Amino acid sequence: MAEVESARGARSGEVAQAEHRRPQSAREAILEAAARNIARQGIQGLRVEQVAEDAGVSTALLYYHFESRAGLVAAAFEYASEQAPSTALRLEDDTRSGYEAVRQSLLAELDEDPAVRDYSIVWGDVSASAVFEAELRPLLRSITGSWRDAVAGAIERGIRDGSIRADLDVDATAELLIVLVDGFCMRWLSGSLELERARALLEKAIAALLEP
Amino acid sequence: MAEVESARGARSGEVAQAEHRRPQSAREAILEAAARNIARQGIQGLRVEQVAEDAGVSTALLYYHFESRAGLVAAAFEYASEQAPSTALRLEDDTRSGYEAVRQSLLAELDEDPAVRDYSIVWGDVSASAVFEAELRPLLRSITGSWRDAVAGAIERGIRDGSIRADLDVDATAELLIVLVDGFCMRWLSGSLELERARALLEKAIAALLEP
Repeated sequence: MAEVESARGARSGEVAQAEHRRPQSAREAILEAAARNIARQGIQGLRVEQVAEDAGVSTALLYYHFESRAGLVAAAFEYASEQAPSTALRLEDDTRSGYEAVRQSLLAELDEDPAVRDYSIVWGDVSASAVFEAELRPLLRSITGSWRDAVAGAIERGIRDGSIRADLDVDATAELLIVLVDGFCMRWLSGSLELERARALLEKAIAALLEP
Repeated sequence: MAEVESARGARSGEVAQAEHRRPQSAREAILEAAARNIARQGIQGLRVEQVAEDAGVSTALLYYHFESRAGLVAAAFEYASEQAPSTALRLEDDTRSGYEAVRQSLLAELDEDPAVRDYSIVWGDVSASAVFEAELRPLLRSITGSWRDAVAGAIERGIRDGSIRADLDVDATAELLIVLVDGFCMRWLSGSLELERARALLEKAIAALLEP
């Protein structure tokens, strides 16, 4: 036990030192650890002490960055959303057609890559928890809105470059597509649908909705 | 406290007596109470003693019917699924066109009626919990499969009666539709989308996918 404590102390010291050089790194280590912990056992099973230990920081430093358990959950959710593949839609210098940008980035959300899977579990668990915990809703609503707007932006680009049909309701289609992605992620993560089947169905729906 | 206990004892006695006359009623009272409790605070917050109290039965009778907490959750999930509006799709004497049967029954899942809302929360919470609890998956998979098959059956009927386009992949379309319903329910219940907006988008998607 003394050894574990001292090992943790040493790691904590390292990260704290690293933090002075690169201000974001202890924060990011905590967010990564929080996302991994939520992905393993859900928000309800999240233990702040475990997150601090996994991140190699003290709980005091964790609370310094995130104030409370609820603050940590919210920040981990925001972090997971920022790491999700769809965020590539926001890049300015995207050389793909609008259609390919939408298709590739939405399909990339259904991926066995452990990081993508973990972020997807965090996203789904925060959504599910917001049914019971009203304080999660404003952030969920805001991040869902940003995602929808990014998809809508790519759809508009696709209409301009001719890769997407021009007669669609952009906002409604963007909303529909992200609802589909979340629905298929839930089926996949809960074991109701094989990943490949979910991907194939999503790809078919994207083609049916967007192709000119 | 003594008064509460005796009031509960009286209710318990009534239901137990009713059970002798109508064998399903204590069981159903427990399932209703379990569904309401899950809808209020989720599976993780479910307390067996509270369910028994709300149902007006003893915990002994509850365990007689459901063996364990996990058995109660599974049975409550199955019960909520059976009460969901889409089950009307399985009726033999449906006089609606196939298209109207699909449209009306899927839209009916998005409804402010407290019972419909509660069953929907139970469904969503079991799906979300199955991400972490593998033992929930076989039942979830089986009930999701039955739902998809009921929708597929109504789509086939719609193709025969001419109300639904004939060139679609029936199973893929049924799967897509129920994923959409679940996705929109999650958006609605988690406060990310207004109910009316969710209904309008779902209705539009149904028309786009099914109309001849």
